Amino acid sequence: MSEIAARIARLGLVLPEPLKVPPGMVLPFPEVNIRGNRAIISGQGPLNPDGTLATPLGRVGEDVTVEDGYHLARLTGLAMLGGLQRSLGDLDRITGWVRIFGMVNSAPDFQRQPMVINGFSELILEIFGPEVGRHARSAVGMAALPMRIAVEIEGEVEFRV
Amino acid sequence: MSEIAARIARLGLVLPEPLKVPPGMVLPFPEVNIRGNRAIISGQGPLNPDGTLATPLGRVGEDVTVEDGYHLARLTGLAMLGGLQRSLGDLDRITGWVRIFGMVNSAPDFQRQPMVINGFSELILEIFGPEVGRHARSAVGMAALPMRIAVEIEGEVEFRV
Amino acid sequence: MSEIAARIARLGLVLPEPLKVPPGMVLPFPEVNIRGNRAIISGQGPLNPDGTLATPLGRVGEDVTVEDGYHLARLTGLAMLGGLQRSLGDLDRITGWVRIFGMVNSAPDFQRQPMVINGFSELILEIFGPEVGRHARSAVGMAALPMRIAVEIEGEVEFRV
Repeated sequence: MSEIAARIARLGLVLPEPLKVPPGMVLPFPEVNIRGNRAIISGQGPLNPDGTLATPLGRVGEDVTVEDGYHLARLTGLAMLGGLQRSLGDLDRITGWVRIFGMVNSAPDFQRQPMVINGFSELILEIFGPEVGRHARSAVGMAALPMRIAVEIEGEVEFRV
Repeated sequence: MSEIAARIARLGLVLPEPLKVPPGMVLPFPEVNIRGNRAIISGQGPLNPDGTLATPLGRVGEDVTVEDGYHLARLTGLAMLGGLQRSLGDLDRITGWVRIFGMVNSAPDFQRQPMVINGFSELILEIFGPEVGRHARSAVGMAALPMRIAVEIEGEVEFRV
Repeated sequence: MSEIAARIARLGLVLPEPLKVPPGMVLPFPEVNIRGNRAIISGQGPLNPDGTLATPLGRVGEDVTVEDGYHLARLTGLAMLGGLQRSLGDLDRITGWVRIFGMVNSAPDFQRQPMVINGFSELILEIFGPEVGRHARSAVGMAALPMRIAVEIEGEVEFRV
């Protein structure tokens, strides 16, 4: 078993199945796009273990609390790791997180996007440690997200080819 | 004639002229920034063949239908290809699409951003095929876009130096 | 003294201290993430010389004028240069600006995001010149930004390793 997979298991975490695409939705792009030693990660939302969308849906600061937003960002991280696992075969190949763009479906006056996206960042640092897990980050407020998900994150990692 | 240019002609598509910058607007950056083998593409809106902004303007789900949004995303793709053609000289030099960030000017309750940005993705796949055309993607809802355009897309391709 | 630092001094500009993180806020990521020859810059807001958030806060087109927004984008550029200076040791190592993503906290009908982000672009071109300073750019309207800052910018430069 790879080191990262062992750590994920030890933490009692589960990488969900791929997104079960809702009926009528067509997504003509991969979860992860491999180009050279870069793995570019498509915008990802929070998933349940079976690949359905995790709830609550809606705007943080209105329909969703900061605490729930934090948890949804953590679930988004697990979904992203699922996609990287499927694309790279082994998460130990990741040599460094590069960039994270954290998008929070935000009520007009909500201003604590960083506290929400911390659910993602803290998961990545827990699993990969400070050197490999280190990432540049933005955490900002969107007017709307697909299917009313509360959090969407895209990013990039580099890996051993 | 290059292969990609031939395919574009065969599909009856036209790459528009560069954006005719509206009076009073200053845009101190290139359409495409070449660094090494990366061509990073500035945020681009939908254009008519003469380089004027394509309409309708406004928010999808309010001023603009999903169908019109899809068409505007397709026009945005053609505008982007025009910029890449001018920067690279020959679109056959593109070895892979890397990343697309699709921004939809969204009414507060609009949640079908992916259906809009599919107008872009499907164009790119039609022209470049599944290997070169494959791209990581996000499709998200913005509060506002410059000049009230309905769609703006930025991205990156890699190319043969 | 390095050439870029000398130019900054000659222009009478000051690079601010790092962000004084407001109480209760945790930001578990670096200002700049170095991976290979890429320096990826986390989302940055406008700072006063002592690292406190520069004001006015709020939405451009509502709480903040375009002129103030332009100035805040310029301050965001100086803050970013401060982070790059701390990460790279010497700003002369920057061989090229790659990408800038300019986010403007926007009133629903505000549509001049480019005029705001020009405060950033013009600073970078003034300091680095047209070859090194050239950058791909988007300038778009966000529903909300952390701590109600009016402008946030993320980006990437490449540098001499």
